[in-house]
Amino acid sequence: MRMYDLIEKKRNGGELSAEEIRWMLSGYVSGKIPDYQMSAMLMAIFFRGMTDEETSVMTDAVARSGDMMDLSPIAGVKVDKHSTGGVGDKTTLVIAPIAAACGVKVAKVSGRGLGHTGGTVDKLESIPGFRADLNREEFFAAVNKTGLAVIGQSGNMTPADKKLYALRDVTATVDSIPLIAVSIMGKKLAAGNDAILLDVTCGSGAFMKKTEDAVELAKKMVQIGQRAGKRMAALITDMDTPLGHCIGNILEVKESIEVLKDGGPEDLREACLALSSNMLYLADLGTLEECRAMAQEAIRSGAALQRLADMVEAQGGDSSYVLDTGKFSEAPYCEEVKAQKDGFITHMDTESCGIASVMLGAGRETVDSAIDPAAGIILQKKTGDAVKQGETIAKLYASDQKLFATAAERYQKAIVIGEEKPAERPLVLARVEKGAVEMF
Amino acid sequence: MRMYDLIEKKRNGGELSAEEIRWMLSGYVSGKIPDYQMSAMLMAIFFRGMTDEETSVMTDAVARSGDMMDLSPIAGVKVDKHSTGGVGDKTTLVIAPIAAACGVKVAKVSGRGLGHTGGTVDKLESIPGFRADLNREEFFAAVNKTGLAVIGQSGNMTPADKKLYALRDVTATVDSIPLIAVSIMGKKLAAGNDAILLDVTCGSGAFMKKTEDAVELAKKMVQIGQRAGKRMAALITDMDTPLGHCIGNILEVKESIEVLKDGGPEDLREACLALSSNMLYLADLGTLEECRAMAQEAIRSGAALQRLADMVEAQGGDSSYVLDTGKFSEAPYCEEVKAQKDGFITHMDTESCGIASVMLGAGRETVDSAIDPAAGIILQKKTGDAVKQGETIAKLYASDQKLFATAAERYQKAIVIGEEKPAERPLVLARVEKGAVEMF
Repeated sequence: MRMYDLIEKKRNGGELSAEEIRWMLSGYVSGKIPDYQMSAMLMAIFFRGMTDEETSVMTDAVARSGDMMDLSPIAGVKVDKHSTGGVGDKTTLVIAPIAAACGVKVAKVSGRGLGHTGGTVDKLESIPGFRADLNREEFFAAVNKTGLAVIGQSGNMTPADKKLYALRDVTATVDSIPLIAVSIMGKKLAAGNDAILLDVTCGSGAFMKKTEDAVELAKKMVQIGQRAGKRMAALITDMDTPLGHCIGNILEVKESIEVLKDGGPEDLREACLALSSNMLYLADLGTLEECRAMAQEAIRSGAALQRLADMVEAQGGDSSYVLDTGKFSEAPYCEEVKAQKDGFITHMDTESCGIASVMLGAGRETVDSAIDPAAGIILQKKTGDAVKQGETIAKLYASDQKLFATAAERYQKAIVIGEEKPAERPLVLARVEKGAVEMF
Repeated sequence: MRMYDLIEKKRNGGELSAEEIRWMLSGYVSGKIPDYQMSAMLMAIFFRGMTDEETSVMTDAVARSGDMMDLSPIAGVKVDKHSTGGVGDKTTLVIAPIAAACGVKVAKVSGRGLGHTGGTVDKLESIPGFRADLNREEFFAAVNKTGLAVIGQSGNMTPADKKLYALRDVTATVDSIPLIAVSIMGKKLAAGNDAILLDVTCGSGAFMKKTEDAVELAKKMVQIGQRAGKRMAALITDMDTPLGHCIGNILEVKESIEVLKDGGPEDLREACLALSSNMLYLADLGTLEECRAMAQEAIRSGAALQRLADMVEAQGGDSSYVLDTGKFSEAPYCEEVKAQKDGFITHMDTESCGIASVMLGAGRETVDSAIDPAAGIILQKKTGDAVKQGETIAKLYASDQKLFATAAERYQKAIVIGEEKPAERPLVLARVEKGAVEMF
């Protein structure tokens, strides 16, 4: 087999066989196939796409390129949730405890934040003592004991994805829907869960800007998972404004706990209920309506909040912070961003809001950057809200006053104030299950 | 400037600026831009093409990436001819002497054979003593003295083309018309002639299989040359059967000399007259009809033959071989290929005929292979000819009898015998000048 022939075949619109795809992936990981041939292949895939069969085989090859997580030591149905990323997206902190409280096992391997999106592990690590580096035995024991655990990526999982992603990142081949689906689902299949709920975000703060692209990506990923024998569903959720009112690690942990205490902002509550009820549904606990009622009850009764405290405790953290969020440290400096005229917020460039938060110290510009857990933004006004000139629309928090100037300017530029109140957009835009798309 | 942005721009159908193209080429030659980014760019160009402006700028950048030949020490109008390659294509040996006999200066830098196509330098080197490695001063002196000289490539000409071609060759991005045009014309512009006649071959022995592709390539190259201030024309010539009756170095030299002696096969004579009259036309020596008459007279009078002898002598060769081709050595072994049934030859896979000749020792499979000057094939029957079962259709020549089995099989498979005489195809299929295409 020659890589040249495979590139030419794909370039000419042909379909790669399973044998060819597996040969290509293993040759690339081992270094036998050079980057310059793989980048030509990736660009050809960008233009020609991949069939369902190709996508499935490539995902499987990516998953099997390194260690596969075997979750069989964990009793019960293991359900994963994956978000394609967003700003202010702290849903895992809420829905994992809800699902665990309802009897689902959540054994989650989560990422760190990079660029404008935050990471669940970073958020949890803002709780004193919390450890995301449990080894396998500790991880399984924690999930068996409390029903949930969240750890960072470790070991040699999906090296093919790491190598491919690094190459795509420098050759303008990231935004190919089949390649995105392969990358995400390769990692998900390697993580070994029984069911996977996908949260495909969509809008100015998400990778997918258009609903139709998000739906297409969701359909592809659901299909890949089903072919691999997983129970699958996907929600397309709005990320055209940040989710909730808080961006930044401690701020987001506190806001998540508010929701678990039956409070918190309406959009975040709704996102968490929609996602957690779908996780329960995938675990076969009832109809979507029944599952939603179970999720609401897990919040109302305090069972979900207790699960979060249990998890923090099991992972070495101080669970008293969960029960009393007043204990979290606050950033020493705050600067307010004011509305520049009367009207309604008609649009927020959500990616820019995320970048403003990174500028304040809340996120990473490169993988090696340090994070300031207390830094971030509290959004006082969001898309659809009426504002008066001079009114505070956001509060910026940082440990260094010098960071405010550029961050405030970036945030200000992200906000569009118009004369008419914009049409409301539903939080869940669509739902995909078994190839069927339900639009809301 | 970032290569990533340039790849993305091209991928999305944008036009690269002159500044961007020059930055990219110089960065690639210096090693600052890695192969994996350039191969993604080349694949994006394969799908998106290049505008006329992009193609011109890139050609100029390729030409200027190394040494530029300055032909000003040669008096008179310097006309180049370039063929895109074929089997049995020995026209340079005929038309350069014709053009020189008519007063045109031919200072030709020519290639060696690789794969199924032969090279002019290899053919000339089968004349005892002939040197293709003249230095610049010897080269200019030879052209000034005899009107023509043919040397091999030397020095650091178009390193960007060498590097790009090697990358295209392993990433399935060779067959992109703009990239082919850039590669050929980059070398032609670096060679410094005043006018360039392009012989774009077309058919089973050529890189371009379809006439429309050959015309498109010819138009692109003519335009690039004109934008660079060169007088340009292109002929699209048939390479669906080998040109003439001989393939192999000594065999082709002898056949070329037959044409210069006013003999030789009809198709080769016609090709040489068409090409040489266009060279004279580009040197402004008259109308195409007048130039054709001049070329015919150069043959009839023996002036062109004398020019070939003069050139051989000036380049250290024994010109008595030109005047008496009986002096050339012959291959010790000959094997005849017979027709397998009655009928007409309806098709010849010309590339396979060339490969059969390489198998006999007449060409190179890799750049380091040695060549047997006496090896080759004499075609007794060609496309359109009637054949009887058992009749000899070709004679194979080699210095080692063991080479015949596979070469004869390859040749036999290249020949299709049918019941009906195929329609005749003109030798010159089209002519391109100043953007206008004349089809024949």
